[in-house]
Amino acid sequence: MAEEFNVAILGATGAVGTRLISQLEQSTIPVKSVKFLASARSAGKVLKFKGEDVTIEEAKPESFDGVDLVLASAGGSVSKKFLPEAVKRGAVCVDNTSAFRMDPQVPLIVPEVNAKELVNHKGIIANPNCSTIQMVVALEPIRQQFGLKQVIVSTYQAVSGAGQSALNELMEESEQYIKGEEINPQILPTKGDNKHYQMAFNLLPQIDVFEDDGYTHEEWKMIHETKKIMLNDMDAKDIKVTATCVRVPVRIGHGETVYFEVEDKSATAKQIQDALSNAAGVVLQDDPSQQLYPQSINSEGSRDTFVGRVRPDLENEGNFNMWVVSDNLLKGAAWNTVQIAEELVKNNLVRVPENAYEA
Amino acid sequence: MAEEFNVAILGATGAVGTRLISQLEQSTIPVKSVKFLASARSAGKVLKFKGEDVTIEEAKPESFDGVDLVLASAGGSVSKKFLPEAVKRGAVCVDNTSAFRMDPQVPLIVPEVNAKELVNHKGIIANPNCSTIQMVVALEPIRQQFGLKQVIVSTYQAVSGAGQSALNELMEESEQYIKGEEINPQILPTKGDNKHYQMAFNLLPQIDVFEDDGYTHEEWKMIHETKKIMLNDMDAKDIKVTATCVRVPVRIGHGETVYFEVEDKSATAKQIQDALSNAAGVVLQDDPSQQLYPQSINSEGSRDTFVGRVRPDLENEGNFNMWVVSDNLLKGAAWNTVQIAEELVKNNLVRVPENAYEA
Repeated sequence: MAEEFNVAILGATGAVGTRLISQLEQSTIPVKSVKFLASARSAGKVLKFKGEDVTIEEAKPESFDGVDLVLASAGGSVSKKFLPEAVKRGAVCVDNTSAFRMDPQVPLIVPEVNAKELVNHKGIIANPNCSTIQMVVALEPIRQQFGLKQVIVSTYQAVSGAGQSALNELMEESEQYIKGEEINPQILPTKGDNKHYQMAFNLLPQIDVFEDDGYTHEEWKMIHETKKIMLNDMDAKDIKVTATCVRVPVRIGHGETVYFEVEDKSATAKQIQDALSNAAGVVLQDDPSQQLYPQSINSEGSRDTFVGRVRPDLENEGNFNMWVVSDNLLKGAAWNTVQIAEELVKNNLVRVPENAYEA
Repeated sequence: MAEEFNVAILGATGAVGTRLISQLEQSTIPVKSVKFLASARSAGKVLKFKGEDVTIEEAKPESFDGVDLVLASAGGSVSKKFLPEAVKRGAVCVDNTSAFRMDPQVPLIVPEVNAKELVNHKGIIANPNCSTIQMVVALEPIRQQFGLKQVIVSTYQAVSGAGQSALNELMEESEQYIKGEEINPQILPTKGDNKHYQMAFNLLPQIDVFEDDGYTHEEWKMIHETKKIMLNDMDAKDIKVTATCVRVPVRIGHGETVYFEVEDKSATAKQIQDALSNAAGVVLQDDPSQQLYPQSINSEGSRDTFVGRVRPDLENEGNFNMWVVSDNLLKGAAWNTVQIAEELVKNNLVRVPENAYEA
């Protein structure tokens, strides 16, 4: 009989947490037991797993005794506090927060791109930022076939990326706007900053806080995480990346205009479309004659990354535009996390090595 | 006493038309009389001009007898039909449709950029596409000071750019979505195409119809109109432009991420900000420490173009990102049209020359 695993979900209640549960239910991972962990505030609430009631427990270091696999999405500080404790107790952790992404001890994984790096994990594996994941899924088959020199990305990010409370705020504001009522923003653009602005029927070119160089931390993530994920390949040359991240009044499904330059100047849009249509995790939706292109509402609930509007820059050989959409809560978060866990199971890597992660 | 003008507004009822009226009311143009012209369907309706009732008349060639100045925004086919007739009757026409924009006989004007070309008009002057206008207003001071080699733009276009009926559709769909009712799109992404998609809480990467090369006509406009407007300067070298245009569920206020390369590789973001803050028609809103950046809802009702998020591409010297927002119905349409008319008045150019426009 196949090995079965005791799985803990840390942060089971949020927009991503509820999807971690459903993605785990639908996964190929043989689950012996599940444990839902959260803050004291959520402890005692009951959620379902495969039809059975599971009572949420308050997360403590001892909660991880006997756990094989942790899927974490309860915020960076929670992961920082508990995941090293879980590793000490023998649990392998897949973390959806930004806590460990740039840590040199931690592989940052998008299975379609760099699953092979899992073999060297030390107990913690990081799941990249949502907007980064869908971009590298679309870029990797292009990089493999034509080489990749430069990427200029503009994001159109859905509000659910800022969490369930932000999504609630969008819907409340939209209703207030329609009724002509006053709007009092409390959360967006980002909970952790000082000022809050209306999101309904508006555009906010700030996601996460600002860095000293004028980029937001979200833009920083897209630049640095992309390099960490894509440059693992020894053959990969450096890729230049720049990004502007904008929040749009959409519920689920990040959009991205991705402008990119390939090394092979003879590459055609048709060849790039072919590479994309054969790529794992990608669905090519690209037929202008049928007005077929990726849309946010059509991406909702799918694990795939949708790509369309592939066309050459008419004045710069080897440069192309494309449009990439994916469900930011699934491929951008919960599904990529569970997919990493499936890879761990498949490759017999649900074990903490001797040279385990050290905080 | 200053000369006064008989002004006709062709297409006075739409989202742009009502703003043509209010912008004309607030303009420096000495108005002797106004005439509102529209289709037979709207004839007989009454609108106000400076507090007085004006009854809409059905547009006919004879309607332009005695008219000095026509402001047109009733659709391309209407302009094609009537403006040459108006010119024959001695009226100078400023056209907000796409009918004459690329016509070599017709100057395509954004006053902050190329007002000096008005001197050679032949009776018809074209107002550029909304998304093009705000971009060139922001780029021109940069081009003048640092030279401009390349532009890569992604648009976040408000629904009012597709007309009042599209805006009504967005609001109706938003309300239906909130109430859980069925949504039946009839207009967006573009009235003239076969399929219609939900706009509420969605992203639609199609504005106008598709060309054979995979670009939409809106993207084509941004590429070709930008060159026609900015390359009038004898010193201007060719500027490479590529664009992806996306409709977003915003009412008013187009957003644009504009990535650009300047000729002067020593240019700094600070110098570019200074150039922008001194430029006509531009308001620099760029202070990350105060979370200050342009937002769609703040642009509504203003004639200005707002620019923020100016910062260098950290890996490509001489390349920069910025974020540009403007009220697409004002600077993108009605105000730019009236502003052109003001320039004509100021420079004594409200007269059809002998070598008048020939259809």
